[in-house]
This record gives sequence, structure tokens and C-alpha cells, in this order.
Amino acid sequence: MDIKQYIASIPGFPKEGIMFRDVTPILENPECFAYATKQISDFVKEVGADVIVGPESRGFWFGIPVAMECKLPFAPVRKPGKLPRKTISESYALEYGTDTLQMHYDAIKPGQKVVIVDDLLATGGTVEAIVKMITKMGGTVTGIAFVIELDDLKGIEKFKGIKTLSLTHYEGE
Amino acid sequence: MDIKQYIASIPGFPKEGIMFRDVTPILENPECFAYATKQISDFVKEVGADVIVGPESRGFWFGIPVAMECKLPFAPVRKPGKLPRKTISESYALEYGTDTLQMHYDAIKPGQKVVIVDDLLATGGTVEAIVKMITKMGGTVTGIAFVIELDDLKGIEKFKGIKTLSLTHYEGE
Repeated sequence: MDIKQYIASIPGFPKEGIMFRDVTPILENPECFAYATKQISDFVKEVGADVIVGPESRGFWFGIPVAMECKLPFAPVRKPGKLPRKTISESYALEYGTDTLQMHYDAIKPGQKVVIVDDLLATGGTVEAIVKMITKMGGTVTGIAFVIELDDLKGIEKFKGIKTLSLTHYEGE
Repeated sequence: MDIKQYIASIPGFPKEGIMFRDVTPILENPECFAYATKQISDFVKEVGADVIVGPESRGFWFGIPVAMECKLPFAPVRKPGKLPRKTISESYALEYGTDTLQMHYDAIKPGQKVVIVDDLLATGGTVEAIVKMITKMGGTVTGIAFVIELDDLKGIEKFKGIKTLSLTHYEGE
């Protein structure tokens, strides 16, 4: 199945000069959604995991079905102020300024293997912050899976030594 | 299965006087998560649906696995500025001020039957706004499913004439 057929490319969103890759058509197509979930789940079984982690909000779209299919716990990563129990936080650089992510402090137990799932790899800042939180909690990131990788931004270079999967790639534009 | 065992009650979150019902322990327990998904999916099959709709972010947690299990499309409801294609919007009253939700304008086709899935029914303002958007697009809401219903707030009275399911209830506090 060519997953690109279910990704819409939106020029100028959220701002001028950006070509946004919209995965909502995947959600609207049960066959493609099941296919993407299966590909990522096979990767999870290959690398081994005790927990699946995904960031708000589009990481939930793919991380949750993968956790269900693999019968594994899912631990959400959220923006500050959204998780109600005690959290750990990690900040990361944006083009201008910084952003912060949080996880429940007990979402990962020491020694657990973790696969991170997100919709899109750009510069990799979000996932790098998540890797740091998991490591602080004593977990090991055994794999990182993306639906889309933007090759030009070379975000993948941030994750040397960790197995990665990208279901599809975009270059240039 | 007693789903309440997997709901944490957090006093004073997000502000003084609120008892927050935290469903993240459900996500962390594959058996309970599969059980909740199955209950809602059985309801979807009973009322009939062509599309599952859920709001950002906790509605994604339950709506997406239900859509997968029922092999139906999932259409996300998001905060303004998040959906990249042409949208329709609906505002609803909060305790102070208003909030706005959006869907892609073509997420529901005229004549389609829709089930809305969300984690929690409080006053029902969010879901009421979603019902309006679906109706504007020509769809019919055949059912609304919640993991938790806060009985005292009587939000359910906003949805007379629509079949509803609440997996568990809380009163008072």
C-alpha cells in the first residue's frame, strides 16, 4: 500500500513557506490506518517494548492503536498543565524560543523498554526531549517510529544508536 | 471489569474545588483499555455508524481505537488553527468566556451516521458543539459514548433523542 496516497500536502500551513503533511486522510481510511498500525506494530515486536509512548496530539493518533495492537501500555506525552498527577518535564528549542513537554513521573518504570511513536520527524526536537524524559525515569528507548520523515531536515541524526522506522519519506519542496 | 479501578481521582486539578477524573491509568492497562474499547464498539454497532468523531485530545484516546475496532473512518475535532484544510467552526460557552472547535469541512458526508466518542461528560458543551457541526455537514448523530459521566452536572439532558452510553458514573464531590 502506498501510504503517500493518504497524506495531503498543504502549502503555506501553518505559515508561509511551510509544506504541511496532513495525515488526517489516513485516519479517514480504515484500511490504510490498519496498514500503518500493522507496520509500526511489527517494528515494535522486532525491537521489543514494554511501553509505547506518543506525544500530543498526532502522536496519539498512531501510538494508541499500536499500543492496542501490541497489547502494551500507552503513556502520553503532553503540553504543560495537562497531566494531572506528578510529572517530569523537558524543554526543547524551537525556531524561536522553547517548548516544554511533560510525562507522568511514574509512566516508565526503571528497566522498561520503550518505543516512541509520532506522526512526523522534522528536526527531531520533540522526540529528543521525550528520549531524555524516558532515560531520566530509567527506561531504555529501543525504537522510534514515524509515519513521515522529512529527510532534508536530518532529524534522524539525533537518534544514532536507536532503531528507527519511517513509513514514508519526503525530500525538498 | 470495574473500570473505576483504572480512573484516578485528583483533587484540586486543574484548579481548587475540582475533582479531576484521570483516565491515563486505563491507557496504561491493555486489558482495561481493550475492555473499554469493546464496550463502546458494541454500542457503535448497535446504533449504527459510518464515521467515528472524537475531540482533542482525550477523545482521541478512546475514539481512535473504537474506529479501528469497528473498521470505520475517524474524524478529529480540534482547537482552532490545528486542522490544515478548510474547516467549519463552532463556539460554545465556558464558565468564563467561550471556546471554539473545528472539523475539516468535508469530514462528514451528507447522510452519514456518526457516533461521537469522548472521555468525559461534564456539562456537555463540547459535544453539543460537535453535534452542531456534524448536523451542519448533513450528518446524523446516532450515538454519543463517554467513558465517564458526571451525573450531577446533568450534561446528558442536552442530548435527548440521541442514544448515549456512559461506561461509568460519578456523583457529587
